[in-house]
Order: sequence, then C-alpha cells, then structure tokens
Amino acid sequence: MPNPTAAMLVIGDEILSGRTRDSNLHHLAGELTRRGILLKEARVVADDASAIGAAVTALSAAYDHVFTSGGIGPTHDDITADAIAAAFGVNIGVRDDARAILAAHYATTGAELNEARLRMARIPDGATLIDNPVSRAPGFSLGNVHVMAGVPAVFEAMLVSVLATISGGDPMLSQSLRVLRGEGEIATPFAALAAEFPDLSFGSYPFQQNGAYGTNLVVRGTDPARLDAAMARLGRMVAPE
Amino acid sequence: MPNPTAAMLVIGDEILSGRTRDSNLHHLAGELTRRGILLKEARVVADDASAIGAAVTALSAAYDHVFTSGGIGPTHDDITADAIAAAFGVNIGVRDDARAILAAHYATTGAELNEARLRMARIPDGATLIDNPVSRAPGFSLGNVHVMAGVPAVFEAMLVSVLATISGGDPMLSQSLRVLRGEGEIATPFAALAAEFPDLSFGSYPFQQNGAYGTNLVVRGTDPARLDAAMARLGRMVAPE
Repeated sequence: MPNPTAAMLVIGDEILSGRTRDSNLHHLAGELTRRGILLKEARVVADDASAIGAAVTALSAAYDHVFTSGGIGPTHDDITADAIAAAFGVNIGVRDDARAILAAHYATTGAELNEARLRMARIPDGATLIDNPVSRAPGFSLGNVHVMAGVPAVFEAMLVSVLATISGGDPMLSQSLRVLRGEGEIATPFAALAAEFPDLSFGSYPFQQNGAYGTNLVVRGTDPARLDAAMARLGRMVAPE
Repeated sequence: MPNPTAAMLVIGDEILSGRTRDSNLHHLAGELTRRGILLKEARVVADDASAIGAAVTALSAAYDHVFTSGGIGPTHDDITADAIAAAFGVNIGVRDDARAILAAHYATTGAELNEARLRMARIPDGATLIDNPVSRAPGFSLGNVHVMAGVPAVFEAMLVSVLATISGGDPMLSQSLRVLRGEGEIATPFAALAAEFPDLSFGSYPFQQNGAYGTNLVVRGTDPARLDAAMARLGRMVAPE
C-alpha cells in the first residue's frame, strides 16, 4: 500500500511579517515522517479568508490529509474556522459540545464565557472536535482537514489526538554518511548510485565546520534491507578498498 | 503607490522530511517588512520538477516578486534551475560568465571544476546572475523570480544583492502593547478599534509566562501618525481613566 500523503497550511500574518518564527511545520514534518505519512507540500497564508479558502481547497483535493495551524482563537483576526466552512460550503455556528467544554473551563478559572470566547465554540457542520488538553478550546477535523491552534504547545498536543485517528504507512527510515568532501566531488558517483536504487531517495547536504567543507549524504526509504544495501555501496564509493 | 507584494518558495525534501528546519522564510520576512514589501504567501515543495514548476508559475503570476531557496547545488537532486527554466519555457545551459566565476574560484582552492560542479553554471536564457560572496556559485533572477541557495549564510548574502535592485514601499511599521489579560477578555473592544482603523492591521498574540496569561496586541501600518493614534486609543481601552 502506498504511504499516505499530507500537506500543511500555516495561517497567520505574524509569520509572514517576520514577527513570529513558525515551529509547527518542523514538528509536524518529524511526526509524519516517523509514521510513514509523506508531507509533500506546505503553504503559509495571511489571516485572509479567500487566501485560506483557496489554499485549503487546493491542498484538500491533492493530498490525503491537510493539517492547519493558527487562527482559531477568540479575536477578530481568528477567521480560520469560518474560512474553512465557507470553502467546504457548510454552515458554521456555536456547537453545544464545544460550548460545554469552554463553559466548564471558564467555570474553573472564574473568567466569563463572553461573546469573544464563545467564538471558539464555532464549529463547521459535520466536523469532529479535536481535544485540547492545554487550553481547552477545541480544534476540529472536517473531511480530511485537521484544524489546530498556532501556539506550539497547543498545536503539538492537538496533533497527538489527530495522529491517533489516522493510518500511517511503513515508517520512512533514513541513514546518513558524513564525509569531509565537497558536494561537487562526490556528486557524479552519488547520482549513479541514486539511479541504481530508484525506490530510495538520495539527498546531499553540504556543511562547513571549523573551516572544513563536508557533505552529509542521506538515503531515505521504507525498506530496511534496501537501505542497508545502498549504505554499503555508499561506503565503498566513498572509501574504495 | 501600493506596497509591492512578494511570495517565497522553499525547495527541498529535507524541509518536508523534518531533517532540516528552514530559517530562510523568517529571515526573508523580516527583511521584506523593513523595506515595505509585503510577503503574502510562502510555499514549501519537494525536489520535484513538476511541483517546483507549478508553484513558481502560480506565485510569479500572483505577486510582484518571488524569492526561492534551495536546489541550486551540484548534485542530482539540485533541479531548481532546470525546473524554473522549463516553467518559463526558456532554454538553459552552462553560461560563460557563470563558468568563469566557478573556474576562478576552484583555481584558488585547487579543486577540479568537474562536470558536477559545472552544473552550477547552468543558467536559464535571459536571467541575470545573483552574486554569491560566500561560496561563489551564483544565483539568478529570471523575470520576477529570484533563485537563491538554501544554505542560510548563502541565501542571506544573495538576498542583500537582490534587495539592492528592487524598489520597496513605505516601510511597514509596528507597535505593540503587552497586557496581562487573556485574549478573550479584550477581543471585543480590540475588534471595534480595528474596524475604526481599516488602514491598519491589528493582531493579537497570546502568551503564557510563569503561569500568567497575557496578550501581545500588535498594530501594523505604514503611516506613523495613524499608528500613534491607534496606540493612544489602545492604551485608553486597556487602562480607562
């Protein structure tokens, strides 16, 4: 069975203005790779309903899963839920179970469940809630789109819940060899090796450390025996007997 | 005159697999904001010619400038230049001035300008070279697409050259107010204030520090007097006399 595919949609003016450095993409990438879900694309858009709608429509059609972060808080610029409901052509309103979660939470903190906070209980029709053990306001899954918070601690906690409901594939494994040679010196034999193992993916990443140039040669794939075979060949290529 | 718009395209399997954490988007976002160029969207795609081509075609048509990072080294997975030439329907080949830059560089290091390294002199017809003071192999601008390296030190150095050739707009200014109240408590008056200043953008970013919940309220725009007016109103809103 082929590995499932996924895309990420990061939503927020603060990422594109340089105010905030996104960390959710890197976290998601690692978690998906471990589960054999192939992250094929990511996009970052502003808090703009048409930009969110266009991106989520395109990504939802192209991949098995879409993970979004950002824009589900109580303020006027939190428009992700409405934009995604509009993109899917479904209604959205305050849902009783989501309201109950917020009511229980604010009862313990003593804060008022006011109109702004109630916005966080707006859930598109047909969606499933995503648990938020950190700050309670839930995310939701609508079709193959999983809508989560932008605050990293909350995003990461919600992702745990979502990933428990999704089938993965054979885990994507990687092995690497670090050599003190420039990329250009080993590129030709490395390309020939890649061509011999079309079921694996071969990447080459240069580094510079204490004035020395080197390259990390990385081989990725799902079959451990094939990886071992490729790494053995790579070792002989770099240090011929 | 409206501020110029821009998009970024990050290219590389290593970002999507979680091996590498991209830092070029955050750097670019800050540099563009300072110059009044509005970064409206970013995408991350794999080392895949059709994915690169589709993304660069869409972004080039939608925004004034497109900045790409990654995929212009000497190895078989460095396919950005060829993919972009194909997307623009122009030829690509080793160009004399680019080859001369590489030849001069490798003459000083003693390394051979072999076939793999010569790949870095492949430049699409009609492109302008982008200087690389760090590791010499040039980037290029083709139309409104600026193609740069993925290694952060090289990306950042190339960006300096490119930005010197691009007209900016009125710098995007921002002011912020840090309050020890939850987002939900101030969301309604904050939204009303945002509606009164439609020429500014208002963002609200929650934080948690030492167990206290707070919010950073950020106002952005190009007119300093309007920003000051909004911040004065914001101050009275948060601490009424």
